[in-house]
Amino acid sequence: MIANPCETGLVISAKDAENITQAPTGAIVDIAGPKVWPGLNTQGLTQARLDFAIGGLVPLHTHPRASETSLVIKGTIYMGFISEDNILYASTLQQGDIILFPRALMHFQLNVGNETAIAYNTLTSQSPGLLLVASQIFRPNLTAAVIEKSFGIDAATVKLLKESFPGHP
Amino acid sequence: MIANPCETGLVISAKDAENITQAPTGAIVDIAGPKVWPGLNTQGLTQARLDFAIGGLVPLHTHPRASETSLVIKGTIYMGFISEDNILYASTLQQGDIILFPRALMHFQLNVGNETAIAYNTLTSQSPGLLLVASQIFRPNLTAAVIEKSFGIDAATVKLLKESFPGHP
Amino acid sequence: MIANPCETGLVISAKDAENITQAPTGAIVDIAGPKVWPGLNTQGLTQARLDFAIGGLVPLHTHPRASETSLVIKGTIYMGFISEDNILYASTLQQGDIILFPRALMHFQLNVGNETAIAYNTLTSQSPGLLLVASQIFRPNLTAAVIEKSFGIDAATVKLLKESFPGHP
Amino acid sequence: MIANPCETGLVISAKDAENITQAPTGAIVDIAGPKVWPGLNTQGLTQARLDFAIGGLVPLHTHPRASETSLVIKGTIYMGFISEDNILYASTLQQGDIILFPRALMHFQLNVGNETAIAYNTLTSQSPGLLLVASQIFRPNLTAAVIEKSFGIDAATVKLLKESFPGHP
Amino acid sequence: MIANPCETGLVISAKDAENITQAPTGAIVDIAGPKVWPGLNTQGLTQARLDFAIGGLVPLHTHPRASETSLVIKGTIYMGFISEDNILYASTLQQGDIILFPRALMHFQLNVGNETAIAYNTLTSQSPGLLLVASQIFRPNLTAAVIEKSFGIDAATVKLLKESFPGHP
Amino acid sequence: MIANPCETGLVISAKDAENITQAPTGAIVDIAGPKVWPGLNTQGLTQARLDFAIGGLVPLHTHPRASETSLVIKGTIYMGFISEDNILYASTLQQGDIILFPRALMHFQLNVGNETAIAYNTLTSQSPGLLLVASQIFRPNLTAAVIEKSFGIDAATVKLLKESFPGHP
Repeated sequence: MIANPCETGLVISAKDAENITQAPTGAIVDIAGPKVWPGLNTQGLTQARLDFAIGGLVPLHTHPRASETSLVIKGTIYMGFISEDNILYASTLQQGDIILFPRALMHFQLNVGNETAIAYNTLTSQSPGLLLVASQIFRPNLTAAVIEKSFGIDAATVKLLKESFPGHP
Repeated sequence: MIANPCETGLVISAKDAENITQAPTGAIVDIAGPKVWPGLNTQGLTQARLDFAIGGLVPLHTHPRASETSLVIKGTIYMGFISEDNILYASTLQQGDIILFPRALMHFQLNVGNETAIAYNTLTSQSPGLLLVASQIFRPNLTAAVIEKSFGIDAATVKLLKESFPGHP
Repeated sequence: MIANPCETGLVISAKDAENITQAPTGAIVDIAGPKVWPGLNTQGLTQARLDFAIGGLVPLHTHPRASETSLVIKGTIYMGFISEDNILYASTLQQGDIILFPRALMHFQLNVGNETAIAYNTLTSQSPGLLLVASQIFRPNLTAAVIEKSFGIDAATVKLLKESFPGHP
Repeated sequence: MIANPCETGLVISAKDAENITQAPTGAIVDIAGPKVWPGLNTQGLTQARLDFAIGGLVPLHTHPRASETSLVIKGTIYMGFISEDNILYASTLQQGDIILFPRALMHFQLNVGNETAIAYNTLTSQSPGLLLVASQIFRPNLTAAVIEKSFGIDAATVKLLKESFPGHP
Repeated sequence: MIANPCETGLVISAKDAENITQAPTGAIVDIAGPKVWPGLNTQGLTQARLDFAIGGLVPLHTHPRASETSLVIKGTIYMGFISEDNILYASTLQQGDIILFPRALMHFQLNVGNETAIAYNTLTSQSPGLLLVASQIFRPNLTAAVIEKSFGIDAATVKLLKESFPGHP
Repeated sequence: MIANPCETGLVISAKDAENITQAPTGAIVDIAGPKVWPGLNTQGLTQARLDFAIGGLVPLHTHPRASETSLVIKGTIYMGFISEDNILYASTLQQGDIILFPRALMHFQLNVGNETAIAYNTLTSQSPGLLLVASQIFRPNLTAAVIEKSFGIDAATVKLLKESFPGHP
């Protein structure tokens, strides 16, 4: 997906509109770490380009080892993070606006405009890590009691949620 | 809750059985960081004692800035963590067994024995951080679309989950 | 120069064309560190917006404590850095292209297009430091012999250079 | 000595009473670092189990790269450390008590009860280092003058001490 | 150039007077890092011996990853560094005097006495890095416009400087 | 004891011969950290000058947070350190010789020449720490059993050693 991963410069190629629309949550995240851009090695940096269909979402997730900024290049994106004391800090950003996702906190980005959107993100680690919250809960075959008690729901609701989640066994 | 937070030694007092049973998920976590044990300052350590009622759970959570070990003192506790690629690593531990929760990964501890249980945990930071997964999702008033698309569920299910979650606005 | 330095979001305002043209080397660098954007504190990040007149230059400089990426938003910018063994690595970048300036190496950015240009840069420290090479040599009243022998030139040429340098005593 | 060094869990096996009694200072320290427990790699942790005969001692030593906590599981153990200004901080601990040995300071643990004792220790490095004070002084064939002047004793006393020390050449 | 790079000790051999005089700027810097002194590996140290002819100069340079002290063993050496805000801090040192070059700042050392001089320097990294300012500017074939605008000089002066610089293409 | 603790330069004054001879072990260590030389703050460095009477010793000690080099300026000094596996690495150094004491290992320096001696040492921390081995053992009023078992000696010998040690209570 990287057009020209040379030593000093990088181009993260534009995405085909149809591919973006068909992505699971209507967004494609193209991450350039040291595997595609060797010059990043030891520099403490990862770059990413985000392409959003209308209504597209980068789902709730956290990077344990990096803080991150996101710069809107096109469109109108609602973005936010959740502090350790469970407070939401969020804003609707336009072209040229920048947001900070503090290190290790959960965050999301949602295209709320009536056109496609693009953002460029920079993370402060060449190995930032990625925990996708819903996948962490529903991909492994967690004992139902752990989910029931963690979320305060009954066994039937856990079963419903597991079956709804795409790709769950 | 700390009986003797003197400079060199610490006693984390035993809990009353009734209090443990009445705790929200049937478990009390008594954390001793530098506020209650000043000697920990700059030493990169936090201590904790976990008391479980029968069936008690320490819910899914992550510490962004610490790895952790848990030593079972009494009872039978099912414990595990989820790797970044969404694999569950879990075991049932008895007295004298130790588990490792690698830095920043989600984990839980569930009393699966037919008696109360006790564990002592050590974390490798005096400020390990704590993200309780369910509280992160349902305590802030997140736009429903973010939860719907993150979890692959419809608006009605999101409403149901929010209303089930204790303490949600 | 920062329009909205709120906790989560940042807008680095556009610059007036005349101001850019009249800047000493035809470029304005608007740096947003933790003083203007308090949320950056402890996050290991500085953001910057660069506005170039035609032919505008961000002069040779180094940041001792940060690596840096630059993303071209508008125009055609020739950018490069010099390795420790004095090799130049440089490219001409268009909109959407990204370059890396490795930590602590000297670098520059020159608008070589026939229109104004804009870039957004991210640095991996909230206190990256800045050594502007020419100012370092000619702003302090260095003993002429140090410059003569460092650069292999005679006293008359040192005098000529000092007198040419804007703002030198 | 490790029964089950699997990836997530660890059992440090109990010791035979006779073996403990016959150990040089009446104590066995069973250390589990990344060699016996590979999951510890990069997690900044070492675990240890200490078994004491009556009167058993873990002799004066220091770990240059780790702080340490000790949790008493059984018995009555007198433990302490010596600050950089040569002050002793020590306590007698019972089951459930915890002590901190600050990073790099000299410390010891002595079973002062009338039964065997057990403690579990956690160190904040996978490579904490170990300097056993007496072995450092008497195992290498140090010039007598260095010991004489360091300790303020005469050559005859140095000779006596060297000959008393087990395993000295 | 290292006579005895054994594990514990190092001798940086004296230099022949004629060699020093014929060195490009009248000074020889003999650097002992972990390649010549393997014991330095992981210790965060580099040692150097500096030999100056009369009038000899260690030219303007910076070490991005180390602070440095210099101890005068023989002679009279004028030394200084330039702060980030372009202020010169300099002194003339005699035998037994010590100066500090703060991490990453540009500095120089000039023999201003009427005899040869010797200094021993210690740097706080086994890989301190070295950017020789004049070589950084004139060794690579930098576009003339970058030098012209960085230094506020015209094309003819840039051409003159380039041709004066020893070893420039 | 510091003649000129200015911002950039430092002079550690020469010592009076009689004072050196009367020092407890025949050596004076004059340490210049950030309290006497404020410019060292945040630079990761401590400087020291060591003056030895004939036969003078810097006793066995360790710096938990620094590696160290020692450069002999005058005389003949026998120096060494002890590895974690209790091996002695030692050499006799002359003027211009340098030794390395690896981070946190025990070491000593003994004047074995027939004249006074001088060395200059650099440590890689502004707060290196200092544990003087004999003082650590005999200054605090350690329970005799700890010393007896650590050193493999009887109570009478411990009593003898304690009473010999200067300044012991």
